[in-house]
Amino acid sequence: MSRVYNFCAGPAALPEAVLQQAQNELLDWQGKGLSVMEMSHRSDEFTGIAAEAEQNLRDLLSIPNNYKVLFMQGGASQQFAQIPLNFLTDGACADYIDTGIWSRKSIEEASRFGNINIAASAKKYDYFAIPGQNEWELSKDAAYVHYASNETIGGLQFDWVPETGDVPLIVDMSSDILSKQLDVSRYGMIYAGAQKNIGPSGLVVAIVREDLLGKARASCPTMLNYQVAADNSSMYNTPPTFSWYLSGLVFKWLKEQGGVAAMEQRNRAKQELLYKAIDDSSFYNNPVSANARSWMNVPFRLADAQLDKAFLAGADERGLLNLKGHRSVGGMRASIYNAVSLEAVEALVAYMQEFEKEHA
Amino acid sequence: MSRVYNFCAGPAALPEAVLQQAQNELLDWQGKGLSVMEMSHRSDEFTGIAAEAEQNLRDLLSIPNNYKVLFMQGGASQQFAQIPLNFLTDGACADYIDTGIWSRKSIEEASRFGNINIAASAKKYDYFAIPGQNEWELSKDAAYVHYASNETIGGLQFDWVPETGDVPLIVDMSSDILSKQLDVSRYGMIYAGAQKNIGPSGLVVAIVREDLLGKARASCPTMLNYQVAADNSSMYNTPPTFSWYLSGLVFKWLKEQGGVAAMEQRNRAKQELLYKAIDDSSFYNNPVSANARSWMNVPFRLADAQLDKAFLAGADERGLLNLKGHRSVGGMRASIYNAVSLEAVEALVAYMQEFEKEHA
Repeated sequence: MSRVYNFCAGPAALPEAVLQQAQNELLDWQGKGLSVMEMSHRSDEFTGIAAEAEQNLRDLLSIPNNYKVLFMQGGASQQFAQIPLNFLTDGACADYIDTGIWSRKSIEEASRFGNINIAASAKKYDYFAIPGQNEWELSKDAAYVHYASNETIGGLQFDWVPETGDVPLIVDMSSDILSKQLDVSRYGMIYAGAQKNIGPSGLVVAIVREDLLGKARASCPTMLNYQVAADNSSMYNTPPTFSWYLSGLVFKWLKEQGGVAAMEQRNRAKQELLYKAIDDSSFYNNPVSANARSWMNVPFRLADAQLDKAFLAGADERGLLNLKGHRSVGGMRASIYNAVSLEAVEALVAYMQEFEKEHA
Repeated sequence: MSRVYNFCAGPAALPEAVLQQAQNELLDWQGKGLSVMEMSHRSDEFTGIAAEAEQNLRDLLSIPNNYKVLFMQGGASQQFAQIPLNFLTDGACADYIDTGIWSRKSIEEASRFGNINIAASAKKYDYFAIPGQNEWELSKDAAYVHYASNETIGGLQFDWVPETGDVPLIVDMSSDILSKQLDVSRYGMIYAGAQKNIGPSGLVVAIVREDLLGKARASCPTMLNYQVAADNSSMYNTPPTFSWYLSGLVFKWLKEQGGVAAMEQRNRAKQELLYKAIDDSSFYNNPVSANARSWMNVPFRLADAQLDKAFLAGADERGLLNLKGHRSVGGMRASIYNAVSLEAVEALVAYMQEFEKEHA
């Protein structure tokens, strides 16, 4: 079969050129006679691969020198615990913003380790809009402010950066990192599970401002301590070498595509096309308020939910895969990360219009 | 270049047939038009891959039904914290056996979470022998007894299973799981980082007796809680899907090779050949006592350490890679895990004899 158009929310589509390079060198990396998977993480070959990946990510996001880039395991879910264990001293409190399922999961986990103040919640808007900063009730003495810039399930995305003064701003960018331009210096920490815009699952990248390090609780497991990861160049123990390597290929591919600025243009065009198709029709709808619509995850419903199955079956036939919405919200969802081309979105829109004609 | 003989201690050599299958289906898994890396972990395709991998591991080790098999992240080093967080209630104590660098690391981490009694240490034998059980001083009320069945750096391996009565026995089998036959029912828990005998790094497998679950401390991060992993079939969050898939291919390959019994025969022959070459010569030596010599990691020294560089250079020329000993002990080390063939060991021995003739 030829390659499908893959709208999976994650693990998600990867650039075909990246997979091709990985395939070509899977048994023999650059004539060395072994796979990247078979290399010592301390070998010159792998430390070279690792350093190049980090440098390319630094270039792509213009990461300032006073930030560490950490390659870790456990996904964003493990970060939900690591963040309070590293930054929330006993008795201190942190502010969290609730905009959907993933930010609520981060709140639930952090609450096990300290005082968490929900400074704002999208609940009052049924999670179809993001409360503006004038509605936030930040604590006076928070250790940090945490939010998720993009909610993968609800399809909500911040199109602005919160202002928290001297209080470090921590953001879960799992599903929109590298999709738009970004001023890293606005943040204390940025983290992202790899399996959407970076690479294969099993890797999580954290970009941490150095002055925040070194304050972990005594009860923080060594492997969850950012300072330990930083001191050991993310090799306190054996890192997920193949995921790191493949992420490095994605970073290189992004640079070849013109970097994050070019991806932003492309992503802008993709989401405009898809939301326009939804808005121009009474057959499809997306309930999210205009300024909070995600560029990465576009949930939409058919006016008649009884047609959902037929819609998905027809999509599958055309090689438009993984359009079923998350089980908690139903309907459809198209995830259109960096590796999903404009061509894929055009094919989806063409199918949507065809299906509407047939069934409206 | 053709494939080399790779004696790396980890990440280590993988079976060529496994890498070939992974290469063939890297962009298109079984005609589905996408890579395993691009599949939702909740898709029928991936849950099928995951379940088949688990079943094959269960078959290979005859894992009884009252054991859970967990696929997690963070490597053995994260397990060093997870074990006390899950099994050591406040105020309780656990017994640890010290046979080298890895067991000492597990002791160091566990000591941060509770009372750890070092019930026996190989220190009195300069870490060249394992204290017999008659030398162990087990606590009366230990929550568990922990040891490492194989020390990757020192090249020490238990050729016996400790007897701990009703006290659960927990073993770090990172470097010798699946290399020999094993009675799982002797253990409360077995765990192993993947990157030696299982698959790519970034995955750790734990086999846990069910009655030990559900007692984690309140302060245990959700992602480190075995009960949570068990309740969610190791998919509380996105697992390292590609590593899991590739490990499944290794398990299938092992079954095709005749299973663990056949690997044990092969591994016995490999280590016999290598130790005999060392013992028959006064040019090479290995200081480990006969009954504690590792079948997986064979450290050896040249009588004249000034020849080390020449030895390694000549080995590299012949495609015998990664023979340099761990930086903490020096000398040489040949790691001869399941995926390292008898042919590779024969090539190494032939080179050792050739080098000796030239330089003795």
